[in-house]
Amino acid sequence: MKAVISPSRRLRRTPFSDGVEAQGVSGYTVYNRMLLPTIFESVEADYHHLKKHVQVWDVACERQVELRGPDAARLMQMLTPRDLRTMTTGQCYYVPIVDETGGMLNDPVAVKLAEDRWWISIADSDLLLWVKGIANGYRLDVLVDEPDVSPLAIQGPKSDDLMARIFGDFVRDIRFFRYETFQFQGRDLVIARSGYSKQGGFEIYVEGADIAMPLWDALFAAGEDLNVRAGCPNAIERVESGLLSYGNDMTDDNTPHECGLGRFCNTHSAIGCIGRDALLRVAKEGPVQQVRAISIDGDSVPGCDRPWPLYAGDVRVGQVTSAVWSPDFNENVAIGMVRMTHWDAGTTLRVDVMGETRVATVRDGFWA
Amino acid sequence: MKAVISPSRRLRRTPFSDGVEAQGVSGYTVYNRMLLPTIFESVEADYHHLKKHVQVWDVACERQVELRGPDAARLMQMLTPRDLRTMTTGQCYYVPIVDETGGMLNDPVAVKLAEDRWWISIADSDLLLWVKGIANGYRLDVLVDEPDVSPLAIQGPKSDDLMARIFGDFVRDIRFFRYETFQFQGRDLVIARSGYSKQGGFEIYVEGADIAMPLWDALFAAGEDLNVRAGCPNAIERVESGLLSYGNDMTDDNTPHECGLGRFCNTHSAIGCIGRDALLRVAKEGPVQQVRAISIDGDSVPGCDRPWPLYAGDVRVGQVTSAVWSPDFNENVAIGMVRMTHWDAGTTLRVDVMGETRVATVRDGFWA
Repeated sequence: MKAVISPSRRLRRTPFSDGVEAQGVSGYTVYNRMLLPTIFESVEADYHHLKKHVQVWDVACERQVELRGPDAARLMQMLTPRDLRTMTTGQCYYVPIVDETGGMLNDPVAVKLAEDRWWISIADSDLLLWVKGIANGYRLDVLVDEPDVSPLAIQGPKSDDLMARIFGDFVRDIRFFRYETFQFQGRDLVIARSGYSKQGGFEIYVEGADIAMPLWDALFAAGEDLNVRAGCPNAIERVESGLLSYGNDMTDDNTPHECGLGRFCNTHSAIGCIGRDALLRVAKEGPVQQVRAISIDGDSVPGCDRPWPLYAGDVRVGQVTSAVWSPDFNENVAIGMVRMTHWDAGTTLRVDVMGETRVATVRDGFWA
Repeated sequence: MKAVISPSRRLRRTPFSDGVEAQGVSGYTVYNRMLLPTIFESVEADYHHLKKHVQVWDVACERQVELRGPDAARLMQMLTPRDLRTMTTGQCYYVPIVDETGGMLNDPVAVKLAEDRWWISIADSDLLLWVKGIANGYRLDVLVDEPDVSPLAIQGPKSDDLMARIFGDFVRDIRFFRYETFQFQGRDLVIARSGYSKQGGFEIYVEGADIAMPLWDALFAAGEDLNVRAGCPNAIERVESGLLSYGNDMTDDNTPHECGLGRFCNTHSAIGCIGRDALLRVAKEGPVQQVRAISIDGDSVPGCDRPWPLYAGDVRVGQVTSAVWSPDFNENVAIGMVRMTHWDAGTTLRVDVMGETRVATVRDGFWA
């Protein structure tokens, strides 16, 4: 598919789109009805650069669902099987969000700004509508809306150096999945050590679209000698690193345990979670299928735009949902869901790649 | 923006995608996280063809939210300010869906299959999540999910002729926004006289992905001498016809009355509607801004990928959200939201089209 995207307001631009276009974006996806860059120079060139230097990513499509009011913390716990009782202000938690059947509705990061104020930094589904519906139905005393907050990610091994030039050396002290508040042009910005790569870095929650391009420009001006470039979540790096993608590697058909997210669930103690009853059994007995790292033999695979079925003999035992050629590991790296009968590391399966049969091997973990 | 779409499973293919590709699709948008074709030959060539012949549209992205159970009708009425009490099985209603503030969450078509079974054929937002949240919060006795139903639209003046060849002459008797059940390859299919153009036609609710391509192929085989082609909602025809687009011409910031949908609201009698209280005042006093047909002077405008502000003198009085050159009306046709001080037909305004100022004139109605 080499079709272009037809422009419309419905596919929302971001406060950084002017900067992204000036840096030569050449591919997009649509994420939360918003433009998300996918390619600048090329996926491979962007990948090598990300692992060596520092990139600025327009991830405004990680929209925030803001909860404010006396029932905010109660509502937050209703949404997730992760126990939030010990979470403190200043922390970010990766939180599976489940419906009453335990099906995943989103896999966002929750940011606790105060006991009565939270941001949920969402993956690709209108979680806002679920949260608003629940708040309304249970008559909770909480405001739920999408604020004018657009995350900008700084990713890559030189992230600390670039960020320190703008925000000062104290930014280096932020711990993983913690945030601190910093000033830029007189405005308070939440900055967390997080991001959708394993190359290190930060996410800046840019509050107020008016300061988006000034911040973008300041980062590029400050980082010229660091070889800073515009980038985006990289299709190769994220599979190597085992970063799942909601809508690709999991849907509302899947429980968190199937997605390998059991360690983020405290199903027994997450009292109030809407999906708790449904998840108690799977928490105890485990899932019958689960996400696995899978390598696929042969040359570079085509883009994985639909599930590729996995077979053992004639029996379908799973599917591949993300796959791409890795230059650093010199093989096709993939993410799939495999039934327990065939999910042990080293199991050899067949995968149907658009009509071509290839050998697929279940691995004991991701590449990086 | 001439960037390509990066393929991923998350941007779902449809059961008709193989057919769409074989017919030479050249542009897409993403709608409900699913691929929706936007261009085959060219937007203008597709437009002329649509007005003269018959087209088959892959509108599988109009996903269904199915409500089943004793509380289905009650839940349906909670979602909309349109009074559903006199709606009978066999009818389709265009229903604004609003939240507790009266903000539009979607503008779908409701299909009443039985007192306890409804489909909501949605525009571009995850309405499923709102409906599931409400059903859960109010503990309603109803199942809510997305069934394997993919609408296929037959649009254009020769639609009746093409459809009669597959389903028999009785299909000609279906009245506007009514449906009947027909057989295809031994399967029951709901067929309504409806669709997102004013050229006449039908929407077939294709239940079961396995019969999607057989039906697609049967339609093309039967319609060769009718000059049948693959098509899609046409950016020109829909603006000429005043067919609003959720996400473009309205968002959750707008009430139905602002969108000119007051005639689909019976706010006083829609007892149980979640947004009823919020809408009572606007239903009585009217909105302060409203959707209008607007013509824009000069040559063909660029793609409208962001709101274009409307000014009277130095005062911003509205915005254009869809705009395109119309070959048949020989001017730029547009849809915008205008404040009541300046919404009378004939009012001349200025519109900022990507830095270029043009004359814009408020019209008394749409073109077709």
